[in-house]
Amino acid sequence: MTSKSYLMQMNDNGVQGKKTLNGKSVHGNGLPKGVNESGVGIYPAKVKSRRQRWDVKPSVMANNTLNPLRAIVEGMKLTPNPEKAMISLSIGDPTVFGNLPTAHTVLQALKDSIDSQKYNGYAPSVGYQGSREAVANFYRCPEAPLEAKDVILTSGCSQAIDLAISVLCNPGDNILVPCPGFPLYKTLALSLGIKVKLYNLLPEKSWEADLQYMESMIDENTSCLVVTNPSNPCGSVYSQEHLQNILKVASRHRLPILADEIYSDMVFPGCDSHSMASLSSDVPILSCSGLGKRWLVPGWRMGWILIHDRNEVFGPEIRQGLVRLSQRLMGACSIVQGALESILNSTPPSFYNSTISLLKSHSEICYNELSTVPGLNPVMPAGAMYLMVGINTETFPDFKNDVDFTEALVTEQSVFCLPTSAFDYPNFFRIVVTIPEEMMVEACMRIRQFCQDHYRPCSRDSSELDQ
Amino acid sequence: MTSKSYLMQMNDNGVQGKKTLNGKSVHGNGLPKGVNESGVGIYPAKVKSRRQRWDVKPSVMANNTLNPLRAIVEGMKLTPNPEKAMISLSIGDPTVFGNLPTAHTVLQALKDSIDSQKYNGYAPSVGYQGSREAVANFYRCPEAPLEAKDVILTSGCSQAIDLAISVLCNPGDNILVPCPGFPLYKTLALSLGIKVKLYNLLPEKSWEADLQYMESMIDENTSCLVVTNPSNPCGSVYSQEHLQNILKVASRHRLPILADEIYSDMVFPGCDSHSMASLSSDVPILSCSGLGKRWLVPGWRMGWILIHDRNEVFGPEIRQGLVRLSQRLMGACSIVQGALESILNSTPPSFYNSTISLLKSHSEICYNELSTVPGLNPVMPAGAMYLMVGINTETFPDFKNDVDFTEALVTEQSVFCLPTSAFDYPNFFRIVVTIPEEMMVEACMRIRQFCQDHYRPCSRDSSELDQ
Repeated sequence: MTSKSYLMQMNDNGVQGKKTLNGKSVHGNGLPKGVNESGVGIYPAKVKSRRQRWDVKPSVMANNTLNPLRAIVEGMKLTPNPEKAMISLSIGDPTVFGNLPTAHTVLQALKDSIDSQKYNGYAPSVGYQGSREAVANFYRCPEAPLEAKDVILTSGCSQAIDLAISVLCNPGDNILVPCPGFPLYKTLALSLGIKVKLYNLLPEKSWEADLQYMESMIDENTSCLVVTNPSNPCGSVYSQEHLQNILKVASRHRLPILADEIYSDMVFPGCDSHSMASLSSDVPILSCSGLGKRWLVPGWRMGWILIHDRNEVFGPEIRQGLVRLSQRLMGACSIVQGALESILNSTPPSFYNSTISLLKSHSEICYNELSTVPGLNPVMPAGAMYLMVGINTETFPDFKNDVDFTEALVTEQSVFCLPTSAFDYPNFFRIVVTIPEEMMVEACMRIRQFCQDHYRPCSRDSSELDQ
Repeated sequence: MTSKSYLMQMNDNGVQGKKTLNGKSVHGNGLPKGVNESGVGIYPAKVKSRRQRWDVKPSVMANNTLNPLRAIVEGMKLTPNPEKAMISLSIGDPTVFGNLPTAHTVLQALKDSIDSQKYNGYAPSVGYQGSREAVANFYRCPEAPLEAKDVILTSGCSQAIDLAISVLCNPGDNILVPCPGFPLYKTLALSLGIKVKLYNLLPEKSWEADLQYMESMIDENTSCLVVTNPSNPCGSVYSQEHLQNILKVASRHRLPILADEIYSDMVFPGCDSHSMASLSSDVPILSCSGLGKRWLVPGWRMGWILIHDRNEVFGPEIRQGLVRLSQRLMGACSIVQGALESILNSTPPSFYNSTISLLKSHSEICYNELSTVPGLNPVMPAGAMYLMVGINTETFPDFKNDVDFTEALVTEQSVFCLPTSAFDYPNFFRIVVTIPEEMMVEACMRIRQFCQDHYRPCSRDSSELDQ
């Protein structure tokens, strides 16, 4: 065999490669004169660079990846009353009690995908073309057309949100997120060095955004407005008018929107629900969603981004950016992708309707029970799977705040509700309404008992607020 | 119902929240005096901050997320000869030709996981405890003990590598990666602002690392040494001695190792294979792997990190960092996680053996064929599913480089091999040996024909290298 030279190259852009000496490789079969095969003489050991002891620390990014929800919950002393069975109303996972199984068609689609043996290999990083097409068909409407090229499949809605924030924002930028709101926006943004500005939602206005305040927070470094509709943790669903008003703010300030619409179509009967994209012809929108909630399979990690860009603001660059970022992880499980078309097309309307009926019925039970409890102020939801309950803290002097309150509720009544400090918003607690009805009723009774045990009427109650 | 005040809070750490005026909420039911309900007067519109036109650009991270492999391939003119059926030897996906189906036990395990209805909800972000335990049991050995707590389940080996790099490295740090090597290390690192230094592998030494050169590249900002064994793209498997020598370099410089061992145990009979962790008692190692290659289901996106830290260098901090980072995306599909224990425990040895037999047999066919082709210099692999072929470019004056060479091979012979410029290493091409035998034989014949058509004996050939 003839001997060869294995030429090396230098790379640009942060990549340091092997050098060549006078155009000759310094490695490979042919070594330059004066250099022995082990390379001694060319590369003196840099003794100075040697560390004297092991010192491996987690990166700044790892340290900045904080989950406020877990931080709050892990800091709580959750010791249930041994005489009462624990009822947890805290976990936003509709599958935990077994009373909300996914549709038979969904499971069958997944098994068919396995049997086809067509979906074991790598899918494209943005997803199979057919699966993207199926999602586009499912969500397309005359006001918000969609094609396969407008869909990027992701590993759950979490990755959809991650890609959307990552493509729109640089370190030092800020994003506007709702408060109370889903903690992941903040977790992802801070881990990437992106700042977070909270705009408040108004409980007395069914959790509409305070638009004036929202607008006041926009500055030259604001790169994205996050809107969650229907809302986690509030269970609110915005009217067409309110969504249009949010869009006007975004349009006025040329601000793209990340619409977290994972609960889209999980809306109680009689309540209109609109996607943001269907109401705008100029604001570019990345709508994030997935199978997790509506199809009741959050663990499957099947999400997507719908790119709405009627005004050609994102253009090819943002699309290309999303494609590039998708290549870091290669997206969703191929078997689930292979089942997607069938899941979207063959799940019967009765499945969706029965989920919504249950959510509405449980919400009503819970709202009706708790709205007559002194010191509590529940807000009736219109969708999603949550109900927020305000705590009139002045009437519960035994407790400093919502964390204290919900901790004692576990200790005394073995009922756990998430304190909304976990959502950067104090003095409410969130109830997940997906649990079985009898547990919901029992939990409400125990909450009533707890409040009765601790309620202290407060004479200043309504007057001090008007001073 | 009594009116309530909805107090807001200010957050630290990059989060700007709603302010309170004199301790009273400026929002909620109780507004401070002189402020109307819409908030006008408090928040003057910041007209200066308004952008005059839409200008949404992808982030620096998106722009820095480059896939050199795709960049090279997309830049090639791949027009097959219409008279010959295309044979692609380029895709590192063993499923594309259907000749390497996964085991029946693997598919059955996945269906059982679906039927159990236990795996539709959220798994912990690091994976189900039982699935982590199963991985620990599978890889545990006396020299490298493992428990469930040492395993983090991820969305494919890609996310394992992403988490490992993300937890160990800060922007401005550098990592050492093999050249030629799997392009993802560079893609991930550069997207995070981490620099890449390439250490060369020596084809004449069965692709062992040039240790002297590797060591010379370590500086005070080097935070991780990436070792791929068995190797993609080389198909090489390091001896125990060579692995120990790499470990000595890491130990001397107190450098943690990211061991990409996705092809572990895919090693030809007669060749010893060792995990890095089994050979070290002091160097902390994050070993990344997954189901994709050995179980022939790369699309399923089931990967893991094994944390080896006998010397307590990583300690609780790096573990905690990995847990935090895992919460950004919530990991692998729960259905696949639910199948993991059964997949690992009930797949028969005959399945693994028959894959390896095929890989070895195809490698030998290919090596034997191409080693008698003038101008080519194949390197016999010892594992994985690749074979590298050196191009003696001086004897092929029709082509500038490997990209030119492989492009013309498509045009004339409808055979596509990946030029190793895609791996930052010129003048080789990589052959994937998983394709059906008759296609492999046909492809080798066409490559021979192509080389015969273009080979020009070069008188200077062997002499110039010694000058």
